[in-house]
Amino acid sequence: MALNPPLARRLRMGIVGGGLGSFIGRVHTMAAGLDHRCTLVAGAFSSDPEKSKKTAPTYGVEESRAYGSFEAMLDAESRLPAEDRIDFISITTPNHTHYEIAKAAVEAGFNVICDKPMTFDLAQAEALLKTVENSDVVFALTHNYTGYPMIRQAREMIKAGELGRINAIRSQYIQGWLAERVEEGDHKQAAWRTDPAKSGVAGAFGDIATHAFNLGRYVTGELPESVSCHLKTFVEGRRLDDYGTAVIRYQNGALGTVTASQISHGRENDFELEVDGTLGSLKWRQESPNEMVVRKNGQPHQVYTRSPGSEFMKPLAEASCRLPAGHPEGFYGAFSNIYAAAFDDIALRAQGLPFERRDTVYPNVYDGVEGMLFIEQCVASHQQNSAWMPLSHPAARR
Amino acid sequence: MALNPPLARRLRMGIVGGGLGSFIGRVHTMAAGLDHRCTLVAGAFSSDPEKSKKTAPTYGVEESRAYGSFEAMLDAESRLPAEDRIDFISITTPNHTHYEIAKAAVEAGFNVICDKPMTFDLAQAEALLKTVENSDVVFALTHNYTGYPMIRQAREMIKAGELGRINAIRSQYIQGWLAERVEEGDHKQAAWRTDPAKSGVAGAFGDIATHAFNLGRYVTGELPESVSCHLKTFVEGRRLDDYGTAVIRYQNGALGTVTASQISHGRENDFELEVDGTLGSLKWRQESPNEMVVRKNGQPHQVYTRSPGSEFMKPLAEASCRLPAGHPEGFYGAFSNIYAAAFDDIALRAQGLPFERRDTVYPNVYDGVEGMLFIEQCVASHQQNSAWMPLSHPAARR
Amino acid sequence: MALNPPLARRLRMGIVGGGLGSFIGRVHTMAAGLDHRCTLVAGAFSSDPEKSKKTAPTYGVEESRAYGSFEAMLDAESRLPAEDRIDFISITTPNHTHYEIAKAAVEAGFNVICDKPMTFDLAQAEALLKTVENSDVVFALTHNYTGYPMIRQAREMIKAGELGRINAIRSQYIQGWLAERVEEGDHKQAAWRTDPAKSGVAGAFGDIATHAFNLGRYVTGELPESVSCHLKTFVEGRRLDDYGTAVIRYQNGALGTVTASQISHGRENDFELEVDGTLGSLKWRQESPNEMVVRKNGQPHQVYTRSPGSEFMKPLAEASCRLPAGHPEGFYGAFSNIYAAAFDDIALRAQGLPFERRDTVYPNVYDGVEGMLFIEQCVASHQQNSAWMPLSHPAARR
Amino acid sequence: MALNPPLARRLRMGIVGGGLGSFIGRVHTMAAGLDHRCTLVAGAFSSDPEKSKKTAPTYGVEESRAYGSFEAMLDAESRLPAEDRIDFISITTPNHTHYEIAKAAVEAGFNVICDKPMTFDLAQAEALLKTVENSDVVFALTHNYTGYPMIRQAREMIKAGELGRINAIRSQYIQGWLAERVEEGDHKQAAWRTDPAKSGVAGAFGDIATHAFNLGRYVTGELPESVSCHLKTFVEGRRLDDYGTAVIRYQNGALGTVTASQISHGRENDFELEVDGTLGSLKWRQESPNEMVVRKNGQPHQVYTRSPGSEFMKPLAEASCRLPAGHPEGFYGAFSNIYAAAFDDIALRAQGLPFERRDTVYPNVYDGVEGMLFIEQCVASHQQNSAWMPLSHPAARR
Repeated sequence: MALNPPLARRLRMGIVGGGLGSFIGRVHTMAAGLDHRCTLVAGAFSSDPEKSKKTAPTYGVEESRAYGSFEAMLDAESRLPAEDRIDFISITTPNHTHYEIAKAAVEAGFNVICDKPMTFDLAQAEALLKTVENSDVVFALTHNYTGYPMIRQAREMIKAGELGRINAIRSQYIQGWLAERVEEGDHKQAAWRTDPAKSGVAGAFGDIATHAFNLGRYVTGELPESVSCHLKTFVEGRRLDDYGTAVIRYQNGALGTVTASQISHGRENDFELEVDGTLGSLKWRQESPNEMVVRKNGQPHQVYTRSPGSEFMKPLAEASCRLPAGHPEGFYGAFSNIYAAAFDDIALRAQGLPFERRDTVYPNVYDGVEGMLFIEQCVASHQQNSAWMPLSHPAARR
Repeated sequence: MALNPPLARRLRMGIVGGGLGSFIGRVHTMAAGLDHRCTLVAGAFSSDPEKSKKTAPTYGVEESRAYGSFEAMLDAESRLPAEDRIDFISITTPNHTHYEIAKAAVEAGFNVICDKPMTFDLAQAEALLKTVENSDVVFALTHNYTGYPMIRQAREMIKAGELGRINAIRSQYIQGWLAERVEEGDHKQAAWRTDPAKSGVAGAFGDIATHAFNLGRYVTGELPESVSCHLKTFVEGRRLDDYGTAVIRYQNGALGTVTASQISHGRENDFELEVDGTLGSLKWRQESPNEMVVRKNGQPHQVYTRSPGSEFMKPLAEASCRLPAGHPEGFYGAFSNIYAAAFDDIALRAQGLPFERRDTVYPNVYDGVEGMLFIEQCVASHQQNSAWMPLSHPAARR
Repeated sequence: MALNPPLARRLRMGIVGGGLGSFIGRVHTMAAGLDHRCTLVAGAFSSDPEKSKKTAPTYGVEESRAYGSFEAMLDAESRLPAEDRIDFISITTPNHTHYEIAKAAVEAGFNVICDKPMTFDLAQAEALLKTVENSDVVFALTHNYTGYPMIRQAREMIKAGELGRINAIRSQYIQGWLAERVEEGDHKQAAWRTDPAKSGVAGAFGDIATHAFNLGRYVTGELPESVSCHLKTFVEGRRLDDYGTAVIRYQNGALGTVTASQISHGRENDFELEVDGTLGSLKWRQESPNEMVVRKNGQPHQVYTRSPGSEFMKPLAEASCRLPAGHPEGFYGAFSNIYAAAFDDIALRAQGLPFERRDTVYPNVYDGVEGMLFIEQCVASHQQNSAWMPLSHPAARR
Repeated sequence: MALNPPLARRLRMGIVGGGLGSFIGRVHTMAAGLDHRCTLVAGAFSSDPEKSKKTAPTYGVEESRAYGSFEAMLDAESRLPAEDRIDFISITTPNHTHYEIAKAAVEAGFNVICDKPMTFDLAQAEALLKTVENSDVVFALTHNYTGYPMIRQAREMIKAGELGRINAIRSQYIQGWLAERVEEGDHKQAAWRTDPAKSGVAGAFGDIATHAFNLGRYVTGELPESVSCHLKTFVEGRRLDDYGTAVIRYQNGALGTVTASQISHGRENDFELEVDGTLGSLKWRQESPNEMVVRKNGQPHQVYTRSPGSEFMKPLAEASCRLPAGHPEGFYGAFSNIYAAAFDDIALRAQGLPFERRDTVYPNVYDGVEGMLFIEQCVASHQQNSAWMPLSHPAARR
């Protein structure tokens, strides 16, 4: 099978962000490149043109395509011949910049792969939704945890009814890296993520509770109805929440909980999801991503492992594996699976072929809107003494 | 060291409950007997005198001391000479009977070891508190999970400040045994626990969320301020909650969550506690009770194991062990530790010596009052759309 | 059901050993008493009559039945009326004393429950076998790990063919308590276990590798053919092995390995067993005794948990449970299960009823002989540069 | 930092193997590309030129550089201008072909990254050693498990004396994929790995026990002295061992064990390593590669996690991480770390700078020789009834 059929060539990637010292930018490039399906050829690595040029060779990018702004990149790349021009743009900068970049990229006709949360606020998200709907580009949002094979296995099993009616969805996302006020030092990551001007109205809830909410949505497909939330800022002087709990009522009667912490000492990236259905329950932990436990009363517990070739594997889960069972796949693999699914659609579009725009394998602009609604309603509920706030959005997909 | 110093003899136990087919009654007798410190000599095993007599030999109890009611037992035993009379009464019947039995036993001067929740409602609990305070008996409540050595290790470490200021207390108590409507069949346990006339206003919240709340209280000593709760009854036709989530604000600013489920397929007795402090975090799971993980940023995670003889063991934790490290102790051992601590006080009282009545090692009548308040306020909050309800009680001990 | 049917009374236990500071003696008394089926009424707790008398009250035993020697106990108890006399004797003293005590007890007509290894050497074991065969007593050997419900589940599943033909049996028993030369201090346990005059020809191999070998035998029923062994004494000055590995050829062609260590820092009682069959494999760890993993290619892994009431539980395993799933049972429970099975036969014998003498649920004198053969052949193989030594014994039971 | 300093450009990779359906070839290309430090530009993907050409586009390789034989690749690439020519060759074909390819590549002056085991037999390995020593090329052997950060952490901790003198090294590598005779079907992997003409004298021992032996060597640096081995072929009709156990005496007095299985149902790639030292012990499992447990008597167990930025991380381990703690890195990451270290030396050589040839971070030709000695002596020992065979080789590095 050729690369990126029906295109039969590597895609060309341009990145915004990813400068020296970046975390998530590097992750995007590794994830994009894992399957040899694309090459990074351009980047607005930094808003300082000098720094951007210095970054280019660390990616093997030619200096001539290291830009000092996303506008410059869009402009220059648009003028390149089609056979050289970048196929898509990955947006890996802080939240407050996403909207402007994404909007411009989409309007310029570039496909976009955008980090989460999608925008700075809900209004921007809804505006971006319109922009994307008015375009014909591929737009993916890197809620990367949806790329894990066992998460996709869970989704397909639930879709097939194997857990019965869904009653409860519990997710916990527990980290410890902000247990001290590290944002005061030179911790760049911490600095912008705790800065309301860059992160938006929420801290931990914008950064990680959105993942937790999104994963429950992705796996179960259940639509939320309302949310009651209590947020805390435990580290003195911090300007955004670093802890909180949300209780979610789903439209089908299910009850959900999302707890997020960035102040739990020694907890690394301890994100877990539990789903209870009338026929079975499941549990998955991001730090042991290659397995998932499914339980049914009266039966031995079933540990599903990432096991391509085994009959129990659902096709979508199997297609999300690169290695045989027992050869740990991790964070890159999952992240790459988001890219891989987007590449499939990018290749179709490049050939003028139709592709799914709403019910995509990868998280998309609709999920981005819902994520921003979640953040805003959590904050609103908190501000109103945990009152129940509506959480359904017309754009939400099942 | 003699048994039950300064008493130097085995204690004599009388039980209410524990008839054929009983679960918790059997547990109490095993737990009471593990260290040879007491002998079961009397029982009101059943309200049917015939059944009670039939049960007696299964415990090695003489038929003459198998009673058909707690009143008969109190009456007969009171008239026995002191050297034969039971020293204490264990109450292991359904919730709605606790108050009457406990009150009568206390008023008759018998020490009491009572199953949880303490009473049918808060009013009874507060009345019983007065009765106990007006007596000189030992009164213990079997929130048995507080008997695990590693839980006591956690408590002592937190008391010593090793985790710093407490910010978050998360507990989850997840079971699956009520995922179907088993109360309709001949499942005796399920029948009374889902019957509001016997269990009280709450189902899962009365049965297991109380444990979860109590354990957080026991380990941290933090006093609660208010609670917001959402309950669910997922199994159709059931009359009490089988699922719910409570968010708790503590007086020191900490945030707590208690989630309880009895409808999560295949989950057995999956009760876990996580505590975050400014200096460290800890995690403990009831199904792996002999270990506890303590984490501090930047350090390897520390797995504390039940390890008598190791320097890191706190004296209370060490005294709660019967076996060397690696020899699994379980549910009986923990349950026995509640009894053992009560026996210490029972022996003191028997000699007319003073003993601690409020800050006991074992859960006591004060904790029982607080547990009933928790249940009632959770239900009240739920009924008022999860409004925050006060959760502090003057009887609460730190 | 009455206690100890058809006997309908508690059994009377006498113990040899169990003095102040004893580990295994205390374990025996707790294990024996857990189900209220017996009462400890006599003991030769120490060879110092004064110490023995001082120990008696810690068990609630009357001083008059605290003896200064096993001979005195046998003598005095034999002269008591049948309705007072002890029913059985538990032998919990160091290895080198087992034979003499057991022989005398059996010859005096007392049932015996003996700690392992059964004797000081194989010659004693074979002699004891004859003594027991010439008697009509119940003789149980406390290879206590065979009492765990999940081990019995494994045995029954294999017996039923669910794992197919057995190919491999791996057991590892790893401890760390002898990593330093603690026997030089006042560590009584360490002192006798590292003393060839008390332990026999092997140290770690006599103490724990015997358990590992026995468990593989118990679970699979496969008969051994030959063994190749390499032993080490890592701690300078120690007189017996503290580490070693044995490779075992079984008569059916299976290959086994037994590795035992007492010098692995921080390892507690880390005893694990893996069995591979042509249809499935299983794994069990003593430190998580309530679960066992069964795996079959192409299927999700199955975690069997101790789960009375579930259909998958084999009757023998179910009968070995005292608590519902998720309520951890541990070392006592397993140990008690050995006692419980022996009690069944003791009660039958007391009524003059027939009972199984060879294929018992509990390890017996035949297993004891095989255990001693294992120890001696391991040492012999080691001394002959790991040459293969025969390991089959006519007394071995399947 | 530029890519591949001091070279400041991407390296050019040529591969032998990696055709459609290949497992390990794909792994090599992903691992090589993860950090953008190289591009695959040429390949002898198959010995069938047509198939090779068909494979090329799946890697984004131009058809003109898809060769039908390694000779053709060496020949053609040698004639390309230096700025186009491949920098190194990855050998990912079955074992019996390694020697010829590697020898030719080295003699042609190409750096080589070779899959393990290095050659078909020891004689080839020793010959290749001479060839490499007579050249100035970089030669790396993909014992990929040495690339895991926590393995490198273990190595550095032991090197620093943190575990004291090493007493025991236990490794188990348990798989189940050959539990049935799958080589009879169209399972290409299984076919050549069970074919003595392609794999060499050993099956499981050549394929995975070599990894297990190598990892113990890599982590501890202890030199082996002799080995006693017993091999089994459990699947009827199979021509090579699918199970076995080796006991290893090390020169410092340590005892090692290597057990390998490919017939253990449901076991995936369950490779674990335990090391006991006089000051501490450690345990690591390949299926949970991001953590390692270090234990010391009397202290809580320490779970070291892959945690860049934490003080406890050794520089080599830290440099082997690409993601923050809690973001699972897996098999690719480890494999890439072998490549990354080799790239460092390839870049130095390309600039004519000196580089370490013996004590490399990556496994090298010396390790390859030792691995072949291990295989041959295991087989020899087995054939001589498990007699101890010498296992020291003059080429072995500490």
